[in-house]
Amino acid sequence: MPRLRMGMIGGGPGSFIGPVHRIAAEMDREIELVAGCFSSDAAKSRAAGESYRIDPARAYPDLAAMFAAERGRADGIDFVAVVSPNHHHLPAASAALAAGYPVISDKPATATLAEARALASAVAAAGLPYALTHTYTGYPLVREARARIAGGALGTVRKLVVEYPQGWLAGEATGKQAEWRTDPARSGPGGCIGDIGTHAFHLAEFVTGLKATALLADLAAVVPGRAVDDDCTVLLRYDNGARGVLLASQIEVGEMNGLRIRVYGDKGGLLWRQEVPNTLTLHSVDGRTEIVHAGGPQLGPDAASRTRTPTGHPEGYLEAFANLYRDFAATLRGEPAPLLPGIEDALRGMSFIDTAVRASRDEAGWVPLTI
Amino acid sequence: MPRLRMGMIGGGPGSFIGPVHRIAAEMDREIELVAGCFSSDAAKSRAAGESYRIDPARAYPDLAAMFAAERGRADGIDFVAVVSPNHHHLPAASAALAAGYPVISDKPATATLAEARALASAVAAAGLPYALTHTYTGYPLVREARARIAGGALGTVRKLVVEYPQGWLAGEATGKQAEWRTDPARSGPGGCIGDIGTHAFHLAEFVTGLKATALLADLAAVVPGRAVDDDCTVLLRYDNGARGVLLASQIEVGEMNGLRIRVYGDKGGLLWRQEVPNTLTLHSVDGRTEIVHAGGPQLGPDAASRTRTPTGHPEGYLEAFANLYRDFAATLRGEPAPLLPGIEDALRGMSFIDTAVRASRDEAGWVPLTI
Amino acid sequence: MPRLRMGMIGGGPGSFIGPVHRIAAEMDREIELVAGCFSSDAAKSRAAGESYRIDPARAYPDLAAMFAAERGRADGIDFVAVVSPNHHHLPAASAALAAGYPVISDKPATATLAEARALASAVAAAGLPYALTHTYTGYPLVREARARIAGGALGTVRKLVVEYPQGWLAGEATGKQAEWRTDPARSGPGGCIGDIGTHAFHLAEFVTGLKATALLADLAAVVPGRAVDDDCTVLLRYDNGARGVLLASQIEVGEMNGLRIRVYGDKGGLLWRQEVPNTLTLHSVDGRTEIVHAGGPQLGPDAASRTRTPTGHPEGYLEAFANLYRDFAATLRGEPAPLLPGIEDALRGMSFIDTAVRASRDEAGWVPLTI
Amino acid sequence: MPRLRMGMIGGGPGSFIGPVHRIAAEMDREIELVAGCFSSDAAKSRAAGESYRIDPARAYPDLAAMFAAERGRADGIDFVAVVSPNHHHLPAASAALAAGYPVISDKPATATLAEARALASAVAAAGLPYALTHTYTGYPLVREARARIAGGALGTVRKLVVEYPQGWLAGEATGKQAEWRTDPARSGPGGCIGDIGTHAFHLAEFVTGLKATALLADLAAVVPGRAVDDDCTVLLRYDNGARGVLLASQIEVGEMNGLRIRVYGDKGGLLWRQEVPNTLTLHSVDGRTEIVHAGGPQLGPDAASRTRTPTGHPEGYLEAFANLYRDFAATLRGEPAPLLPGIEDALRGMSFIDTAVRASRDEAGWVPLTI
Repeated sequence: MPRLRMGMIGGGPGSFIGPVHRIAAEMDREIELVAGCFSSDAAKSRAAGESYRIDPARAYPDLAAMFAAERGRADGIDFVAVVSPNHHHLPAASAALAAGYPVISDKPATATLAEARALASAVAAAGLPYALTHTYTGYPLVREARARIAGGALGTVRKLVVEYPQGWLAGEATGKQAEWRTDPARSGPGGCIGDIGTHAFHLAEFVTGLKATALLADLAAVVPGRAVDDDCTVLLRYDNGARGVLLASQIEVGEMNGLRIRVYGDKGGLLWRQEVPNTLTLHSVDGRTEIVHAGGPQLGPDAASRTRTPTGHPEGYLEAFANLYRDFAATLRGEPAPLLPGIEDALRGMSFIDTAVRASRDEAGWVPLTI
Repeated sequence: MPRLRMGMIGGGPGSFIGPVHRIAAEMDREIELVAGCFSSDAAKSRAAGESYRIDPARAYPDLAAMFAAERGRADGIDFVAVVSPNHHHLPAASAALAAGYPVISDKPATATLAEARALASAVAAAGLPYALTHTYTGYPLVREARARIAGGALGTVRKLVVEYPQGWLAGEATGKQAEWRTDPARSGPGGCIGDIGTHAFHLAEFVTGLKATALLADLAAVVPGRAVDDDCTVLLRYDNGARGVLLASQIEVGEMNGLRIRVYGDKGGLLWRQEVPNTLTLHSVDGRTEIVHAGGPQLGPDAASRTRTPTGHPEGYLEAFANLYRDFAATLRGEPAPLLPGIEDALRGMSFIDTAVRASRDEAGWVPLTI
Repeated sequence: MPRLRMGMIGGGPGSFIGPVHRIAAEMDREIELVAGCFSSDAAKSRAAGESYRIDPARAYPDLAAMFAAERGRADGIDFVAVVSPNHHHLPAASAALAAGYPVISDKPATATLAEARALASAVAAAGLPYALTHTYTGYPLVREARARIAGGALGTVRKLVVEYPQGWLAGEATGKQAEWRTDPARSGPGGCIGDIGTHAFHLAEFVTGLKATALLADLAAVVPGRAVDDDCTVLLRYDNGARGVLLASQIEVGEMNGLRIRVYGDKGGLLWRQEVPNTLTLHSVDGRTEIVHAGGPQLGPDAASRTRTPTGHPEGYLEAFANLYRDFAATLRGEPAPLLPGIEDALRGMSFIDTAVRASRDEAGWVPLTI
Repeated sequence: MPRLRMGMIGGGPGSFIGPVHRIAAEMDREIELVAGCFSSDAAKSRAAGESYRIDPARAYPDLAAMFAAERGRADGIDFVAVVSPNHHHLPAASAALAAGYPVISDKPATATLAEARALASAVAAAGLPYALTHTYTGYPLVREARARIAGGALGTVRKLVVEYPQGWLAGEATGKQAEWRTDPARSGPGGCIGDIGTHAFHLAEFVTGLKATALLADLAAVVPGRAVDDDCTVLLRYDNGARGVLLASQIEVGEMNGLRIRVYGDKGGLLWRQEVPNTLTLHSVDGRTEIVHAGGPQLGPDAASRTRTPTGHPEGYLEAFANLYRDFAATLRGEPAPLLPGIEDALRGMSFIDTAVRASRDEAGWVPLTI
């Protein structure tokens, strides 16, 4: 079976996430990067193409050129990956869908909720697969956590705490990564809430199977002069009455990428930490604590099928990311991949950002959260 | 120099905290338990006296009897420790102060804010020492954290997260400890917020040197039928503009006594966890992380003077508690003990509880916090 | 029931272990320090007595004086604690036994194996209790580990690794504690092997219930000019054929008091670490890992009866030490205390030191270990 | 620049390490798997080729066929990766070298020391690159540890402890992976010592820059009926007089892939653990402890150049492995890759295995270790 051929949109020189998508996509040899519109600057796009070691002729300066040229090749691209800054997501994804290409996109789905709605329409109109890379849901033990909760290990979920602390934006926002993320014209109205808060929001729903129905948000721009939020506290209510606390920050000095989630039910509790992703801690109401190991024999199929190495051989961020691409490849082959985030998750995420930003700005207290 | 003689109020059969106070008070041999009014039931008070191995004649059934008898002895008590449930704190402490005895009391200071004000008046009228056992401020590394922040290691504090998760009240509240804590007549209007939230609130102010000026509270009684809160989320603003998040819960299954605090400034961050109390993690904005060890050579005098064993020989909860009694003994000898919580802290703690309970009940959003 | 009265031998000014014994002995209020021969220098003994806040008249300058005076008091001492450097252990313990006093002694039992044999004769002749403070066996989870292994949780024990790394003697041996420990005239022929190796040796036998029958030792004096070993590797064989590795060092910079033990059988494995003493990790051959918490509901009676606080409230070194004194108090009351190390353990420990020192010096390969 | 083309030898159906080599080789897009002799069974080789998604025509049943066919293609292989069981290493590598192909090989280099010498001759005769995949030296923080020691952070190295505990062979050796590793005809005379002991041995030399000059070995076959060692204790002396302890076991139930190393000098100490590979702990003799983070700003070039993600985004085993392939690709391009293990390391590793097996069998005590 030949590999699926990927075209990348974005990921030009200096990009962090472009190379990550490339490694993730190719890790399981189901997908191959063959083309890209890495930058609207032709020289930069070409330079990026060289760094990815693709055929120089397939590093395009604009989307239309890429779609036209690739459509004409027997070995043309099968889908596109959108990895540019947020404000490019909608135009890039829409163009790709219109050109007949399935899309896998970095998060958040778009810069604004209105754009997300437009995107949803485009997806529906095209009738093509769309996936959103909420990376952390690709970790095997996150999938195990979901399966355990679905299986009743915690009883009824009553409470969750999801945190995403970082410290890298505690000072001046310098460098390509920092600059666009703190510029509302490129990131959208949400700063931290859109960059990492949306990961945390999605993770909590993913793991618990619950849906948030209301929130109370307190977002701040702590660094003087910052135009978007960099420190966020959000209280959540879920559809079964459970309570949630979501903390996300980019000014917590010393924190690196400390996403973690704790979920508590009436029969048990669990803890997972992204920085030490290969153990999952399970507590039961009788006082017992169990450590579940990635790659170990206790794992269910959702986790076991997405693990490449035996227990004790740590897999990490790139492997988690690769699991989303494996799911996406399955989707393109017509196989089910129910855990892969899609357009519904895209809408929920953008609604979360939009609602939180407005609720905080208006000091509105509890407000309903709808798609 | 002879030991100071302590009389205990409360701490009868089945008490958890009575024996803890006894061990803590006596650990450094500056204090000796010699008498007590352990219960208003004479037989129970006598039984408790036996369990503490004190002179049976000095286990009294009521306060008046104790004060009268002890005043008549050359080796009579020098002070009292109040360790009964919350609603007894005011009458016990007031009576002791009126009888001329300094008081060290378990927290929260009283059952209600009105009572705390009455207590403050009683303390002022008596002109005698009063101390409140916010146990966790006795840990050497908590004192080190305070000293480091005061010394500028974090720069300007911008954000803190203090958490106090427990799980022991996730089900029915059975047993002496659980019953009175979930009965508003004995605990006061605050449940979890008064039992452990107040520790977290105090710890944050203690470590940072900041004072909270406003809060937004979301308190819930998660367990069906519970008459007081058992799960608390409180957002805080401090006098320098810093933002705080305080999480306290008693329904988080698997959590034991997980008090922890993280503080972030513009130059650094720190983390301390009560369950692993002998290390303190310090981050600096240049990416360095340092682990400070209890008993190690890096400690300043506040921590070093309250450490009994060399590094690597873990001290714990009882030793932290004993540090408060050592401070209290110093106070009784007329020496300074500036870190020991007193009546001001008592008032702040009760104001915190009262304000949080009301703000949450009324869904009042941000409300000011005053003493 | 009145407290047992303790007389201390050793523990003068600058002593680390004297105050530790005092705190441990008194923690549960079954024992009270009332007298001592803290130093053979009368002024120093008096100063120590003051620091312990005992009756100045009962701080004696020599053993004979103490025994004579205490025998004449209605409230005279009931037993003695020997806490002086190793070479004093035999004369102190022998004199106490001859004077009719039960003895609890710091480890190692004596400076030499010959002395240990003389001590054993003295104990037998006196017919009085003798206990040896292998502190670490007092930790509740060490006792739980022993109980789990005895109950078959690991199946047949095949392998153990016990390590005791320290770094405090990596440089010049300066200060009272370092000086006598590196002086063979005071410590005996073993340095590190006697100071901490013997703890590790005892712990391994205590936890597994096995007895070592042979050893291969490689001891070194790493620091130039050091007169005793400071870095030790010992291979062990046990009576059921199991293999052991014992590592002890005092030159491993950065290690504090890192005693830890791992035991592996054909059905499971376990791990315990002294510096984080309130969790015990249990592995089973089916891939499951369980964390057992001090104070938790999973503990058997050996651990539960020696725990003072609920789970999550850390107990440490002093509490572990206090558990040995509680056992000793039980012994003096005529109650069983089967886990308390006694004269048999004293002999085994000294035989271990003696055999290891000789085997290493002679490069003798495997040699039998006998009492 | 086009990718280097790799042919794999071994890695047929059921192989663990074949897919690992494939992922590692391709991760940075400098190398592409294009052909293989995955099995001497033609059907199996074809099935493996399909699983790797390579051109079916390039899945060969024997080496000669592969070399002949590939030599004839413009896009023929540039080098081979040898990933078969140990006894195939020499014939496979020799044939490849003779055919003009550089070789990268899994460890240990061969089944016996004599074979390793033959291999060294073959490498010398061919004048082609040869590399050995001691995976763990690919971890960025292992390289950082090496750089720190080389830079003097620990002073003079005096002592090291390197451990490699596993538990997966505690019972019957069933399954493809277990069977050949416990069969001396396929694994060579060493079992555990060759499979993982050699990794630990190499790691210690790699990190410290020291060379072992003598050893004392105690190897056991703990599981009844096992034909090779499964539990190993080796004492080491290094060329500067430093002492080492190497523990490797495959019968320690609950251990997964617990490689860890501690190194102690007169000025500092360090600790690294494979299962939590993204932190490195550094101690200094003044009592300070620093945590170095993968991806962080404190890293030197050896580590920083081999890191793909920012701090807090865990990289693991596959990324470490990929770093060896990146080094190998550099070698093939004629660039220096001084950290990549080569034929000298191959010989040292096989000499270590051979010497340890003989020394243990003969109970020979200390024996010299020569290449």
